[in-house]
Amino acid sequence: MKLYDYQPFPHPRRVRMFLAEKGITIPVEQVDVMAGEHRSAEYLGKNPEGLVPLLELDNGEYVTETVAISRYFEETQPQPALMGSGPEDKARTEMWHRRVEGGLFNALITYFHHATEGLGDERYRNREWGEQNKTIALNTMKKLDERLAESKFIAGDVFTIADITAVCGIDLGNMLEIKIPDELVNLKRWYDEVNQRPSAKA
Amino acid sequence: MKLYDYQPFPHPRRVRMFLAEKGITIPVEQVDVMAGEHRSAEYLGKNPEGLVPLLELDNGEYVTETVAISRYFEETQPQPALMGSGPEDKARTEMWHRRVEGGLFNALITYFHHATEGLGDERYRNREWGEQNKTIALNTMKKLDERLAESKFIAGDVFTIADITAVCGIDLGNMLEIKIPDELVNLKRWYDEVNQRPSAKA
Repeated sequence: MKLYDYQPFPHPRRVRMFLAEKGITIPVEQVDVMAGEHRSAEYLGKNPEGLVPLLELDNGEYVTETVAISRYFEETQPQPALMGSGPEDKARTEMWHRRVEGGLFNALITYFHHATEGLGDERYRNREWGEQNKTIALNTMKKLDERLAESKFIAGDVFTIADITAVCGIDLGNMLEIKIPDELVNLKRWYDEVNQRPSAKA
Repeated sequence: MKLYDYQPFPHPRRVRMFLAEKGITIPVEQVDVMAGEHRSAEYLGKNPEGLVPLLELDNGEYVTETVAISRYFEETQPQPALMGSGPEDKARTEMWHRRVEGGLFNALITYFHHATEGLGDERYRNREWGEQNKTIALNTMKKLDERLAESKFIAGDVFTIADITAVCGIDLGNMLEIKIPDELVNLKRWYDEVNQRPSAKA
């Protein structure tokens, strides 16, 4: 088993943080995207999309998609549960995680690729759509602030994948100068807490 | 327990099809979105986003997000498994489902809201982004055709949520005049098969 990673990028960070929370250690290989290693014939043979993260299973199969990789480890090592425990909690966790993914993490990824210099090799750009996603991300921060006024973590009383994706999103926003507005004191309280977990440095 | 549904829309259809595949029957209430019922104070009290589908649990909690609702039923009634069986299969199913969601279903939803008349009440539109999503959807159909040349269903040998989301996406495309190109014979074979399942009429 091996995880193909690129340390500076936010998507593989979500997987590293997920593994760190579970205390799972597996071999990791860096794919230097900025040097174009993701476009090598060898890597494209493993993942035709050329993206990281990528998980190589012991049966030789390759799994892409951050959450699909995370789910593999949730199943092989259920504790601590990061995707909920029991039907109601799993549904609630998936609901909050999807809100965070669509409204914050993916919105900031879209802003990065469309409204900034991005990686410099984007084949299509729509600046107005990028700017619109900045608005979407800030609106989601406001909703998360309201949620965190009444909840310790995003999905409820325990730390979950929703918090992982959110903290990776907030840090991407920090890099892009889209910071948590000062008045969102609950979101700031939550961020300061989760950002001190050892997994946040994974 | 109650499902808030709107029969003509593609998102709640995914939940109805999921329930039908499992043979689960629950009370359903129609929310006539075209008549504005989703904007009533009563409905917004249940779901501030004003979207369907919405699941009201027996504990009084409300769950939004199509996949979160589906996951609740996958947990309460695991058979037939629609989200995979065992770690590798669950990861593979989640991977294919996310590819179908992002590249086909959500792309066509985006095309609908941005490049067509949409619902007529969109607060923001970006026609170029809408047209770009038509391209994304057609590219995804091509990739699914390649996958279905070697696989009975999208995630593998058994019918899963990835097939549900894909057939709901293809039918949305049909409505929008974005049809499966004639040369994608594997995708057409698969569509003709899944479209004949009783759940496709749910």
